[in-house]
Amino acid sequence: MYQLTKNKANSTPLTPLTFLDRAAIVYGDSTSILYGDSISYTWSQTHRRCLQLASSLSSLGIKKGHVVSVLSPSTPAMYELQFAVPMSGAILSNLNFRLDDKSLSVILIHSESKLVFVDILSLSLIIDALDLFPENIQRPELVLINDDTLAPRQIPALPKSVYVINNTYECLIARGDPNFKWIRPDSEWDPITLNYTSGTTSSPKGVVHCHRAAFIVSFDSLIDWSVPNQPVYLWTLQMFHSNGWSYPWGMAVVGGKNICTRKLDAPTIYSLIETHGVTHMCAAPVVLNILLNFNKATPLKNIVHVLTGGSSPPAAILTRAEELGFNVSHGFGMTELIGVIISCAWKRGWDRLSATEKARLKARQGVRKAGVAEVDVVGANGESVKRDGVTVGEIVVRGACVMLGYLKDEVATAQCLRENGWFYTGDVAVMHEDGYLEIKDRIKDVIISGGENMSSVEVEAVLYMHPAVKEAAVVARPDEFWGETPCAFVSLKDKLKEKEIPTEKEIKEFCVEKLPRFMIPKTIVFRDELPKTSTGKIQKHVLRKVAGEMGSLSLPPPQQLLSSRI
Amino acid sequence: MYQLTKNKANSTPLTPLTFLDRAAIVYGDSTSILYGDSISYTWSQTHRRCLQLASSLSSLGIKKGHVVSVLSPSTPAMYELQFAVPMSGAILSNLNFRLDDKSLSVILIHSESKLVFVDILSLSLIIDALDLFPENIQRPELVLINDDTLAPRQIPALPKSVYVINNTYECLIARGDPNFKWIRPDSEWDPITLNYTSGTTSSPKGVVHCHRAAFIVSFDSLIDWSVPNQPVYLWTLQMFHSNGWSYPWGMAVVGGKNICTRKLDAPTIYSLIETHGVTHMCAAPVVLNILLNFNKATPLKNIVHVLTGGSSPPAAILTRAEELGFNVSHGFGMTELIGVIISCAWKRGWDRLSATEKARLKARQGVRKAGVAEVDVVGANGESVKRDGVTVGEIVVRGACVMLGYLKDEVATAQCLRENGWFYTGDVAVMHEDGYLEIKDRIKDVIISGGENMSSVEVEAVLYMHPAVKEAAVVARPDEFWGETPCAFVSLKDKLKEKEIPTEKEIKEFCVEKLPRFMIPKTIVFRDELPKTSTGKIQKHVLRKVAGEMGSLSLPPPQQLLSSRI
Repeated sequence: MYQLTKNKANSTPLTPLTFLDRAAIVYGDSTSILYGDSISYTWSQTHRRCLQLASSLSSLGIKKGHVVSVLSPSTPAMYELQFAVPMSGAILSNLNFRLDDKSLSVILIHSESKLVFVDILSLSLIIDALDLFPENIQRPELVLINDDTLAPRQIPALPKSVYVINNTYECLIARGDPNFKWIRPDSEWDPITLNYTSGTTSSPKGVVHCHRAAFIVSFDSLIDWSVPNQPVYLWTLQMFHSNGWSYPWGMAVVGGKNICTRKLDAPTIYSLIETHGVTHMCAAPVVLNILLNFNKATPLKNIVHVLTGGSSPPAAILTRAEELGFNVSHGFGMTELIGVIISCAWKRGWDRLSATEKARLKARQGVRKAGVAEVDVVGANGESVKRDGVTVGEIVVRGACVMLGYLKDEVATAQCLRENGWFYTGDVAVMHEDGYLEIKDRIKDVIISGGENMSSVEVEAVLYMHPAVKEAAVVARPDEFWGETPCAFVSLKDKLKEKEIPTEKEIKEFCVEKLPRFMIPKTIVFRDELPKTSTGKIQKHVLRKVAGEMGSLSLPPPQQLLSSRI
Repeated sequence: MYQLTKNKANSTPLTPLTFLDRAAIVYGDSTSILYGDSISYTWSQTHRRCLQLASSLSSLGIKKGHVVSVLSPSTPAMYELQFAVPMSGAILSNLNFRLDDKSLSVILIHSESKLVFVDILSLSLIIDALDLFPENIQRPELVLINDDTLAPRQIPALPKSVYVINNTYECLIARGDPNFKWIRPDSEWDPITLNYTSGTTSSPKGVVHCHRAAFIVSFDSLIDWSVPNQPVYLWTLQMFHSNGWSYPWGMAVVGGKNICTRKLDAPTIYSLIETHGVTHMCAAPVVLNILLNFNKATPLKNIVHVLTGGSSPPAAILTRAEELGFNVSHGFGMTELIGVIISCAWKRGWDRLSATEKARLKARQGVRKAGVAEVDVVGANGESVKRDGVTVGEIVVRGACVMLGYLKDEVATAQCLRENGWFYTGDVAVMHEDGYLEIKDRIKDVIISGGENMSSVEVEAVLYMHPAVKEAAVVARPDEFWGETPCAFVSLKDKLKEKEIPTEKEIKEFCVEKLPRFMIPKTIVFRDELPKTSTGKIQKHVLRKVAGEMGSLSLPPPQQLLSSRI
């Protein structure tokens, strides 16, 4: 029996690129992309444009294994490039247009990118980045993506540069061959994307994923969210975030209508929802906040399904979202796992619960999607933690979603892709009795005081409850006796009255009833603003450095070491 | 870049068996299986029962690579075995309980089956089959599946046999270990199923599929049919047909409620639909006919999505189905492709068309599902046929759905798994201008007369239009001059009046206006009944033999060979 094994016909590499050929047949006449008043494509047009673009890339000398980068918000070009670049055989590197020139130059040099597609509003940024290249390093070619929906006054003057741009995006499409045979991967393990992590804890790392992972996660994401045929999908998520959580490829499977937008303010989003009858959107928590805090928001005509990731939505946010007609799903993903791979799968029985109870359940990250082989929460020796909702461990994952590795970084790769066959996420979670997991912290954010682990997130949650606190971040401060003690960086709300401004002592007292003694911050540092990454995440590694330089607190040792905690 | 390749974490074998672990968490409290008045399981019970069963199989000595067979209609046990057998590491062989003892004994011997789970109503059949085993061949062990929903009078007396049955299904479950670690495949290319084709053209062949194929097709079938979370799925399809078109595994992904039934008459099916609020069902065309021809049928309360395969549903059937509230989808599959892999994907624009036009479009088999890499219709030299709806060629397929091969049959395997990397289906089709294909015939059913290919199905379609014809099958009769001529075998409807019974000449005249001259049957043979397989397909190979023995017709050669056809 085992003599029969894979053959030429059944081992055709899995790749999401085959989705587009099919979409051109099944949904050929249906709208694929809408953008502003001027751009509307059908799936056969999108298919043809991608083939033409891939053919032009080949003509420019782009070959299998080359890296081609894109710096753009979620425009039609950004969507097409998710297919066209890998169709040319190249590896697609989506760049974050909110990075600074220095970070971009580091990434471009590290990736050895041959060519960068750049949105006109990021042109100045990329030129600054290229100007930072050392003399001896070859710069990538630039292709300009114009945008006719922009008014001339919206386009800033370019910095002076010797850099010459030979091609525009539409020229490449126009002179491409619509009958181009796109370059199939030799193996489904061939790389398709190279995305750099935004790095809250360290320098950016280049995450490489293969065609197989992109194929499986596309399917998995459609099934897990029950996406029906021909949804209307609004791009409130930046596609540079982990390839738009795989939905650029997924929309070609179900023939969705992609509503692209550059503007992400509440009036624009509500207007697009109403005009186009949006059914689905993914959104970072911040976008969801913008929508729900918009004071002119009125209930939606039809339900809009929203998938959000990152920190779990608080009960008040979920209640408000449901009142307006948003059906919010919550998941967990990371660039290394090519999108959202754990989701808080809803159970029918939960429909009957109170809003608070629903929010508590929904705030948990949940269970692996069906296409992920295994997810576990493990202790230091790799053993599964108890399903008690209390014992913390690290989330580990196995399955097709796991990256090939970090580009040119064997040490970092080996740190998370362990010999025991698991990918270590660096996220700390508990496993609840019902098998749903809930994230507590990043590994590096765990503070160990007197041998006791504490989650900085839990301490922060208490600080956020204080009426005067706008932002809070808790990190470890080294301590001669205790090893570490919790140190809180806090920014206060604007326009507080004099008497509303708390002292360090008042903040600590506020925590007393709400936290075990050892978790109460021993240091409170007030700041006007906490340092953040370009994607808005608080940079704990910066604060950790500050706390590190403070040195040890002179705390009195406890009277009875075994029975009390500081 | 290409140094990064698969690693231990991301190369975990794809297998549908992981779906069940997850279903036990996500849908643990929800109903998994309902059967009669007495059986109702939740997904955690199904999970536990499957683990216990797999553990008992291991205790009985079943090992990786052994074949374990099942002979049962779509009962709860049949559903559980789709998971439990491969969870023990064994290969699952679903047997057709409509076969005769001789065919069964041939299959059991060929597969070297170690153990057969047998439904109580098929016990007598399997014992007859085992009695046919030669002395020197080891017989498989039998495990009896009892059914408490049957009345004692429904259970026939057993034939006399020396064969001893040591175990019953429920005993094996009862003594199994619920904490059994199910046996994961070493590779996703390891076999999971061995299903025998029913063989309209030749002796049964053992089709071997791997875990990877089962995983991919499960996902693909859910997406293509837009199956939502927690559907109510009625088992009108026999699971022995290509593993129930992958929906046993698929239902674990979406936490569906499986309604099992042994009876497939119209009143039972309508009653189950109403009682349980059925949302989805797969059905062979004959079951659909039974439902639509039921004279007491009244419109359904809610839409029921029906997926059907095989011959395309005529317009009248589709119209009637829609009137009643069935939403019929139509696809093409075969055991060698582990289910339905081409489907007539519906386009929104078609909603506006007339019923006849809709039926014409829906009768086409359609386009590949998104998970299938490539499908083409090719001529003798492997070139794609014109997209003209006229030029016929053979359907060829590439993708994860293609079988590993036929067990112990290198010749048959090499005939369809060609060196050029394609799987040849043996089905003849045309490709329409819009990229949808339509099946015309089996390769062996094409008749070549005077160098002109004709589709026997098209000739049969005309014969079926005759008001007195009940069944028609057209095969080639050898001819000295023309090579072959079409020969029709016809059975007439019951209770015709004397004057309604047509003569051979009348049948031919009926065809004159409707077919090209060369396609009009030159021979008409009336039969009371046409020979059929156990699954109800007409056995053309039997008729072909009869026609072959008739020898050449003495037809006059044409006067002008180049300008006319017989």
